[in-house]
Amino acid sequence: MSAPPAAPANEVVPLRWRDDHLALLDQTLLPAEERWLEIRDPEPLAAAIRRLAVRGAPAIGVAAAYGVALALATGPDEESAARFAAAHDLLLATRPTAVNLRWALDRQRAVFARHAGAPRATLFARLVEEARAIEAEDRAACRAMGSHGAALFGTGERLLTHCNAGALATAGFGTAVGVIRAAWEAGKVERVWVDETRPLLQGARLTAWELGRLGIPHRLVTDSSVGALMARGLVTGVVVGADRIAANGDTANKIGTYTVAVLAARHGVPFYVAAPRSTFDLGLPTGAGIPIEERRGEEVTHLGGRPVAAPGTEGFNLAFDVTPAELIAAIVTETGVLRPPFGPALAAAV
Amino acid sequence: MSAPPAAPANEVVPLRWRDDHLALLDQTLLPAEERWLEIRDPEPLAAAIRRLAVRGAPAIGVAAAYGVALALATGPDEESAARFAAAHDLLLATRPTAVNLRWALDRQRAVFARHAGAPRATLFARLVEEARAIEAEDRAACRAMGSHGAALFGTGERLLTHCNAGALATAGFGTAVGVIRAAWEAGKVERVWVDETRPLLQGARLTAWELGRLGIPHRLVTDSSVGALMARGLVTGVVVGADRIAANGDTANKIGTYTVAVLAARHGVPFYVAAPRSTFDLGLPTGAGIPIEERRGEEVTHLGGRPVAAPGTEGFNLAFDVTPAELIAAIVTETGVLRPPFGPALAAAV
Repeated sequence: MSAPPAAPANEVVPLRWRDDHLALLDQTLLPAEERWLEIRDPEPLAAAIRRLAVRGAPAIGVAAAYGVALALATGPDEESAARFAAAHDLLLATRPTAVNLRWALDRQRAVFARHAGAPRATLFARLVEEARAIEAEDRAACRAMGSHGAALFGTGERLLTHCNAGALATAGFGTAVGVIRAAWEAGKVERVWVDETRPLLQGARLTAWELGRLGIPHRLVTDSSVGALMARGLVTGVVVGADRIAANGDTANKIGTYTVAVLAARHGVPFYVAAPRSTFDLGLPTGAGIPIEERRGEEVTHLGGRPVAAPGTEGFNLAFDVTPAELIAAIVTETGVLRPPFGPALAAAV
Repeated sequence: MSAPPAAPANEVVPLRWRDDHLALLDQTLLPAEERWLEIRDPEPLAAAIRRLAVRGAPAIGVAAAYGVALALATGPDEESAARFAAAHDLLLATRPTAVNLRWALDRQRAVFARHAGAPRATLFARLVEEARAIEAEDRAACRAMGSHGAALFGTGERLLTHCNAGALATAGFGTAVGVIRAAWEAGKVERVWVDETRPLLQGARLTAWELGRLGIPHRLVTDSSVGALMARGLVTGVVVGADRIAANGDTANKIGTYTVAVLAARHGVPFYVAAPRSTFDLGLPTGAGIPIEERRGEEVTHLGGRPVAAPGTEGFNLAFDVTPAELIAAIVTETGVLRPPFGPALAAAV
């Protein structure tokens, strides 16, 4: 396989492979600072994933694919299997909800198995090659989702998105933001509503930053403003990403997505999910089986290290929720737009 | 009228009358600091209301009642009418949504009219007396709401409240938090869910602080967690306050209230509003006529003076939304619990 094309220099990407290490944009510092981390081992990558320096289901998958390769960047041949397995298990355990992580690691495990017994340097090269393929495929999938998704819209659309399912959450271009971007480039979008997405403000910090760079008009609102916006007729469509989609179409995504979907249903606003097929988990019949990560309460009681709640207050911090398929108008994936009933549509798309 | 009893020393109150001035707890600094402002003129009170040093519909009404009295704390007799009118108009214009402000100023205008031509000192005394009556009545109304509202609940309730409709939002005890407190004292409450209430975090800063002082078990969540909590069956009831209730029961309250009500309806969770009759605006047939304050976008893009969004991001910041009567199970007021249809129930309660 020839080396895939890198992202264009002016495009936002969350990571870049640099011959012998992974350069990772520390998203916790955005938009105030663009600091790139130099990742040479699986351990610091696992830490970076846990603290959300890299986040977004597709981006985590790509990063983890490079991460298991890095386990074999050095070391004696006879330790390769153990080093690969340890890195695989370490990375798989970083975050439970997004399934792309497992999917990418499964691909790397298959590569490792195909070349079992090869010298470490060969294994390293094959794993890097596969990671680069995963990265390139994800970027291409995002572009394809953009094309398919843009066709869903008319003109003068006022689209709302939650969290960041943009270039930073993928290998580039984005899923939900990619769809919005393609629709904008097709002249269909009047404005984007960005909800801030507490507790970690990925909407305010990341999506608003990306849309600003792209020159797409947008306004930032608190998460709890979405109902009022819809009641005033100010939202014509919702596009969000996904961390895991069960066989029936139930979709896990950033906490608050379900609330937006319920409001959209009440107001007759179409609610779309954009996600590559690597987000599908057809082994799970419904969303009830999706593990939901619970993160530290301090993410709610503190902001930027400073307390924002009364001292002693205990937070409860679910990182994701599940939107039932019945609230989803369509799932945009790289092969096209899937419509209900999602069971057969998802199965056919894989 | 004899002087009404002051609030017990250990109770949270947002203001206290001190012979010749109003002591006002600066709620923007809570919970980090309990700083009391010494208010001697209408102008600084108007500024304090605008910047939310005092907030909550009933508390604003009480504060404004003292504010017009302060206009006559000094000055020549012949200027009383002009000074009163200027203070009245200044305070009335501070915030548009909560109707208790207008209601309290109307009461003071009637007092002024009854004593037209009296010496300034007499007018001052009568206006202070009326403000103290309004304050005492509000505190008594909250206690009555607590008793009536507590009867709505069974045992082991997990009640969710939005924003702060507590002691700090009233003359003491609170409306929604008063109901929850009374239910807790009756042994009916297992836990309270406090949603943080962006952008100004009145839930995290004020409600969590009040519940902590009262020893009522509570957990803080982001506003967008409410859907996930309800989907898990973790919420058995919602109690919120109100800023204005139209003749048909449509209720304006802090932005995000409508979203909680829509979620409650989907999950069969009863949604209750607790508010004194001074919050009713029977001159408005429906909530469509309620003016909704739009505050500065910087409240969304910044937190505690620090930017939290990408530079150049424009915020859109509605301070309130309207929950339609159809989503409200009952309105708890000082005379009892009102049930749908709210039109006749509200009219009968006034």
